[in-house]
Amino acid sequence: MIASDPVIALDAMGGDDAPGEIVLGAVQAARDLGVRVALVGPREVLEAEIAKHGARPERITVVHAPEVIGMVESPALAARHKKESSIVVGLKLVKRGEADAFVSAGNTGAIMAGAIMYIGRVRGIERPSIAALMPLSGKLTVLLDIGANADARPSYMLQWAQMAAAYMERVWKRDNPTVALLNIGEEEGKGNTLTQQAYDLLKASPLNFIGNVEGRDLPFAAADVIVTDGFTGNVVVKTMEGMADYVMGEIRSAIKSRPWYMAASVLLLPAFGKVRKKTDYREYGAGPLLGTKGLVFIGHGRSDAKAISSALRVAAESARSGMLEAIQQTVPARSS
Amino acid sequence: MIASDPVIALDAMGGDDAPGEIVLGAVQAARDLGVRVALVGPREVLEAEIAKHGARPERITVVHAPEVIGMVESPALAARHKKESSIVVGLKLVKRGEADAFVSAGNTGAIMAGAIMYIGRVRGIERPSIAALMPLSGKLTVLLDIGANADARPSYMLQWAQMAAAYMERVWKRDNPTVALLNIGEEEGKGNTLTQQAYDLLKASPLNFIGNVEGRDLPFAAADVIVTDGFTGNVVVKTMEGMADYVMGEIRSAIKSRPWYMAASVLLLPAFGKVRKKTDYREYGAGPLLGTKGLVFIGHGRSDAKAISSALRVAAESARSGMLEAIQQTVPARSS
Repeated sequence: MIASDPVIALDAMGGDDAPGEIVLGAVQAARDLGVRVALVGPREVLEAEIAKHGARPERITVVHAPEVIGMVESPALAARHKKESSIVVGLKLVKRGEADAFVSAGNTGAIMAGAIMYIGRVRGIERPSIAALMPLSGKLTVLLDIGANADARPSYMLQWAQMAAAYMERVWKRDNPTVALLNIGEEEGKGNTLTQQAYDLLKASPLNFIGNVEGRDLPFAAADVIVTDGFTGNVVVKTMEGMADYVMGEIRSAIKSRPWYMAASVLLLPAFGKVRKKTDYREYGAGPLLGTKGLVFIGHGRSDAKAISSALRVAAESARSGMLEAIQQTVPARSS
Repeated sequence: MIASDPVIALDAMGGDDAPGEIVLGAVQAARDLGVRVALVGPREVLEAEIAKHGARPERITVVHAPEVIGMVESPALAARHKKESSIVVGLKLVKRGEADAFVSAGNTGAIMAGAIMYIGRVRGIERPSIAALMPLSGKLTVLLDIGANADARPSYMLQWAQMAAAYMERVWKRDNPTVALLNIGEEEGKGNTLTQQAYDLLKASPLNFIGNVEGRDLPFAAADVIVTDGFTGNVVVKTMEGMADYVMGEIRSAIKSRPWYMAASVLLLPAFGKVRKKTDYREYGAGPLLGTKGLVFIGHGRSDAKAISSALRVAAESARSGMLEAIQQTVPARSS
């Protein structure tokens, strides 16, 4: 369907601060950004949350889903058995064409498993992949896989790169997006068996492959798309988060160690604020799940109202962008 | 031999700022810390460098090695064929017992290959490993492998953890050091095939294994020893370095954006200096190569005089600590 005025299904119960922050994010996106939102969760809970923010915006509807999948439940089991959960109900709205995309900051594994179960993979895609949007250096980079596939194969990585390039082209308007492989040296031939083989596939593909990048290049937007296996990708995004927290925390405590540092630092608050904003994943909301036949976006467990409203905006833009069709075209047509 | 007054062989030609910074580091370690150093490199070059710093300290000797192995040469070939290089000559000093340890900030692969070729592996150790000392959070953590073995096996990882625990116990006086596995979730059962199997081996071992840690725990000294495969370890240390550079750089440029920020920041310089010092690998000098029959330490390519003098001090302490014997004891004795 991909309407010009798309409807985004939102898991109101997913995330550390659900449903409060999630519902607030939906209200803000509906009111300030004009996004149409189908809030999915227990009806009475959601109505009560919405009521806290004044008159209910016209662009918000509520879809009842009495069950909740917890953050640490077994993903596949929960997705299979909790059919009345906000995740499963939301995914089915997309499957039936009643919503154009699904956004959740809930149990990543359950969203992924549910998306494959209820929406299905794009024909020819071996494994869907979860991508992270990295807002560093003022230029957006997409890193994938960040955890859907801990054990990867070179052929998966090629498909992930192709899908992510299509996404960057359609949604973020990158012309002939650059693709790099995360590796342990810049030269061809470096790496473990997996990256050596993936390098060869990427090099032989029609992608705009620029070669290897290393860990130290990650914060500096070295390419539009950076591809890696799900184990390394997951470790790396968490390392970046931990390191940003660590350095900012050390600066804070160094400043607090002397009264005159504190006085000086007050003058610098806006400068620190700029840095925080740049390293803040919330500016871009949620990363796409690439390779399923419907649009699914997975937000950070710590998502607040701002992150959710950004995610809803990006989901609506993605629905309008034709990215799903572009991803389907990355896979060679089969006679069947 | 392991003398009470050990001699440390130092590759004067290894590193981006060799020989200037390296020789200066040796002079400082000899003069200020009383370390006995055998400087290895082309005699005339080294004599000229030493002469720049006044009277030659008694505790420095020069061992002539006319060849140099470049930073990007093929490691195994260079180690095999450049027998008169500072790396090979230095390693042979250790082999013959004329030095108690070898320190180099040169071509990591060549040091590693040369150490196996000329000094040899500890009997029973499948693969030697390069460890990084992480000086964050004021408490030292050792992370390994950081690149010697891009393709790892669970049995390698168990041995690395055992050797690193022996090192932390002997050199850094940690009592019953804690060991953790870098993984993509805290719970048992998380991870890829490699980490799932490594988990089982670590759990069944006599090590003080505390389970999985994640990327975000790395800056916060979550364990005395953190073990991972060489691919992930290499990506992660470079990511941490890149992220620290990135955040500090962003703060610098935010401060430079307004004159009054700059004025305020001058007052904060000592506070920033503290943070820089804490995230500075140079405080601890060089990481040990674990699993060879002699002590070898590999410094950062960007090592300056301070890093080298720290490395020489730690190498001398390590020679006195009995860590080599402790590492040999981690491997079950074989009848042969």
